[in-house]
Parts: sequence; C-alpha cells; structure tokens
Amino acid sequence: MQRVRIAGGKVTVEDARRARRPRGHALLALRVAGICSTDLELQRGYYGFAGVPGHEFVADVVACDDPRWLGKRVVGEINLACTRCAWCRRGLGRHCPTRSVLGIVRQPGAFQSLFTLPERNLHRVPDALSDEQAVFVEPLAAACEILEQVRIERGARVAVLGDGKLAQLVARVLLVAGADVALYGRHAHKLALARRAGASARRAGKRLPRKAFELVVDATGSAQGLAQAVAMCAPRGTVVMKSTVHDRVELDSAPVIVDELTLVGSRCGPFAPALALLARGAVRVDDLVADEYALAHARRAFERAAERGVLKVLLRAAPAV
Amino acid sequence: MQRVRIAGGKVTVEDARRARRPRGHALLALRVAGICSTDLELQRGYYGFAGVPGHEFVADVVACDDPRWLGKRVVGEINLACTRCAWCRRGLGRHCPTRSVLGIVRQPGAFQSLFTLPERNLHRVPDALSDEQAVFVEPLAAACEILEQVRIERGARVAVLGDGKLAQLVARVLLVAGADVALYGRHAHKLALARRAGASARRAGKRLPRKAFELVVDATGSAQGLAQAVAMCAPRGTVVMKSTVHDRVELDSAPVIVDELTLVGSRCGPFAPALALLARGAVRVDDLVADEYALAHARRAFERAAERGVLKVLLRAAPAV
Repeated sequence: MQRVRIAGGKVTVEDARRARRPRGHALLALRVAGICSTDLELQRGYYGFAGVPGHEFVADVVACDDPRWLGKRVVGEINLACTRCAWCRRGLGRHCPTRSVLGIVRQPGAFQSLFTLPERNLHRVPDALSDEQAVFVEPLAAACEILEQVRIERGARVAVLGDGKLAQLVARVLLVAGADVALYGRHAHKLALARRAGASARRAGKRLPRKAFELVVDATGSAQGLAQAVAMCAPRGTVVMKSTVHDRVELDSAPVIVDELTLVGSRCGPFAPALALLARGAVRVDDLVADEYALAHARRAFERAAERGVLKVLLRAAPAV
Repeated sequence: MQRVRIAGGKVTVEDARRARRPRGHALLALRVAGICSTDLELQRGYYGFAGVPGHEFVADVVACDDPRWLGKRVVGEINLACTRCAWCRRGLGRHCPTRSVLGIVRQPGAFQSLFTLPERNLHRVPDALSDEQAVFVEPLAAACEILEQVRIERGARVAVLGDGKLAQLVARVLLVAGADVALYGRHAHKLALARRAGASARRAGKRLPRKAFELVVDATGSAQGLAQAVAMCAPRGTVVMKSTVHDRVELDSAPVIVDELTLVGSRCGPFAPALALLARGAVRVDDLVADEYALAHARRAFERAAERGVLKVLLRAAPAV
C-alpha cells in the first residue's frame, strides 16, 4: 500500500505495510481525500508534525468489528476521543483533552491506501453523493459549527472575510440559514463563485464597511483578519474566529468592549447536518474542486494546493490491494 | 458653584456659572462622586478629553420638568441616548451611535456643584442607602452587566483577574449569582477584602492555572490581562473583557479557536439590579472606599486615586448655593 508522509517540510510517497487495526476501529480503503490548509501548515512545520497527514476523506470499510459497516462507503469524524471523560460524556469528544486527531495529532491520517478510525467516528455516505462531494463533509461540518454556536436570524446581515475553501463553505451554510451574506475576498474567480452561490461578493480593499454587520466570520486564514472583522462588526454583534494562525494576533480591544462584541472561536463541527445539506442539494460543492491527483503524485498535489488562489485539490487512491 | 476641569493633563477647580438646564433634564446638586479609572485615563489624555469629568455620583434634584423628581436623591445612567434610533427602540440606548456620555463624551460630568442629566436617566436612591454606598451603583451596574451577557450556573468555577475596584465588584456580583469565585491579584490588602467578601483570593504569580475556569473575567485594566484570561479558560468557556486599554492587545488566537472559547466585551450595565443588590445588602461596598476629599481638593483626590493599590476615592460637594 501507498502512504504520503510529511517530514522536514517534504512530502514523500512510500510503500508501507498495512496498518494494524485496533479493536473498535474500522480498516478503511481510501477513495478520495482532500488537501486542507491545515495539511499545508503541517508541511510548513507547525505542530512539529511528522507523519501521515489527511483528515478529509471518503473510504470503503474493508474490515471492522461490527459487521454492519463492512463494505460501506463512509466519511469519518476526525477527533478520536476517550469516550469516558466529562467532555466525552457531554457529547463533546471534539474537546476531549486526551484526544488524538486523524492526520494531525498522534493518529496517522487518510493520505494512504489503508488507514483506521474508530467505528463510532464513521458516517455512511448516501448513494446519491459522489466521492468528490462527500469529501467536503469534514470542512462543511466546520462551517456548520457556526450554526451550533451562534443564532442566525433570517435576513441577518452577515459578512464573511476571505474567499478560500472554508470561506466559500461558510457563506453557503449561512445562506441556507437565511442570512444576507456579503463575502469579501481578493480573487475575482472566487468572488464569482460566491456570487453564483447567492452571496453578494465584494473586493476586500482598504476601505471595508465599519460597524456594519451583526455577524462577521473571519475565514481569511490571516493574522490581520480578526482586527478587520472586529472593525466591521456592529455594536452587540458577533465575530466568529475561523482563522487558525500561528502567530499572536493583534486586537484593538476598545471597540470589542465599548460595542460589547462577542468573539467566538470555532473549529470542527457536526457531520450529520453537513451530510444532510449535501444530500438534499442545499449546499453545492462541485465548483470548489480545483484539481485531482493520484495518491502517488501527492507531492505535486501539495504544490498545486499551495498555489495562490487555488481551491480544493483532491487525492484519489488506486484501488486497495 | 465649583467645577473640576481636566485639560492638558491638569486637574483644576474653578468657579463657574450655573449650568443651563435643557428641556427634559434635571438640574442636579452633587452630594458625592467617585473617581473611576476612566477619569484617571481622561486626565492622561485618552479620548483627547478636556472638560468636566465625573460619571459616578449621588445628587439631589433641584430643578426639573417632572415635579415628581424635585428634591429626590438620585443616581443616573451615564449614556445620553437619542431615544429614537433602532438601538434606543430596542432598549439599548447604551449603544446609541449618537449618544453622549456624562463626563466622558460631549456632556459635562458630575465633578461640579451643579450639573444636568435627562430625567429619564435618573434612579431614586432608597433611604436605607448612604451616599457612600449609592455612589457605587454605576460601577456595580458595570459588574452586573456580566449577568446580562453570560449565563452563570450555580457553583460555576469562575476566575476574576485583577483586584482593583471593578474586579472587587465583579467578584461580589458573581458570588451573589452563586459562582465559585477565585480572584487573582497583586495586593495583599485587596486580596484580603475579596476573601472577606467570600471569594478565594490568590496571588497572581507567573504560574496561573491553565484551562481551569469555565468563566474568566479580565478586570486587570492591563494589556496583558486578556492573554492571561484566555490561557486560564477551559475549553468552551467564556472570557469577559472588562479591561479597556488603549493599546492594541496581543492574543494567541489558536487556543481561542481550538478550545472554541467565547470572548465577550462588557461595558456599562443596568442600574436597577445594581441598586437592588445594594439595597438588600447582598453586595457590600463600604470596605472599598479608600478616601474622601472635598470637591475643592479634587487635584489632591486625583493624585490619591492614582496611587498604586488605592481603591475608591470619593469627592464630596459643599452644599449647593
């Protein structure tokens, strides 16, 4: 079997022995995986990562404890939680302090022919969804997390900062929730995609509207995004923080306090609503795929994904042996 | 009549003509006023302030449109709102974009023998409260604002960072709300006050507990407070921002996002619950008065209030002419 490894900033593809399947885990044969900005950051050395990345995937179950999973096409939640701590008992395994995370923290990821994940993490993919659609469930769930955290009124004036993959998904989820979405980005072709999805899309220039939106989502991925989002947020409004950046960010705290803003950090989200949105066609993702490579060409795929302005790059596995 | 003026960093006391009373305003004869950290910041030149400061006061109504106010002892909300905009119609005049603010923004303050405020801003002070207690209504309302913004469960583990005037009031309000409050400060005598009020009070050293509290209130007044509060906050927890600082503050956004923290900016609060807490003796404030000066000695009072570790300094007016 093939696996993609990141170490010392390099992406290599190597032959490997089949992964051991722990009890309660399913052995998964990769169909399609997606390269996320986090994977590019792992390559750049954040988190001191060395290993097999990949946490956006569609796969077939080829071995498992519960026979009902066998042969099923699945996606999977990426946090491997202990199931016993107070967080897990509250249904918040995504915050379990001893969790590992598929392809990110102490759990080999999905960029390999075969990998394992606890059966309890799996979700079956409806037949109507293609692999190329279902691979968006994980990032779409991260967008759906906003709806778990913030109440969106119909017609709410919402700004999304950024026009990348996550920003596009966030805009689409908020549109489905009934918001009036303005997306601010720097790439004409991505602004066009947002416009086609139903958002009003605007060039992010130096003069952004001030105190104009009751909800602002920072999905720029940049250290400047938060300050911009705060400046655009109306009194008593909410800023959702979706840009994981690895530097300290600067913030003018005076408007946050004087205007009594709420800032909400937002990470992984629930798979079930994301799957449902895709299955009923409420959120379309086909236009977000920029390119597809065979797993064997992962290095080129990473290079392509890192190019400025490129949306989702997919990896396709050869049929499992 | 006497009035206190701040200009160019200097505090002076001068004779002045009696203020004109606009329609709908009451003419107020000062009894006691409190010096707030904001007043010291105005003196240091923030907001480019020049004029009469003062927004914490107890006064007698000596002239008014509505005769029911005449002769009453009152405190008053400090935001002068337009009453007509969307914010005002929602009962959020504290966020009215064209508001002026007593002693802070375009409205001469309470550090003078006579001043005016809209009658609708006034609250009658119950007879059982002394002037020295009632003058705490405004800062206590700012502490009560937290209860309007955040749901506090009984027994919730809460940290208050700072041991100054506002931190002490915040701790007391949260104790009344049933929280298990730990206050972190740097002054032994202030930690002792918090302890006597029912909080556990701890020296704020270099090693603060990490991810330990479901709610952390930054009332340090320092640019470092927010980063400390974030580090002390448990996953899915809330940080209340009460420190208005005039520099950009630095923030490590990664834990905010990964742990999905909520940061809530918090400013002025509702007077009615604050008055009620004082009236029923649920919050005591007598131990927070450090000193009292006649209005004529305001310069010395400001110097005293600016000394390290000093709690509330009061100004007392001579009987109005």
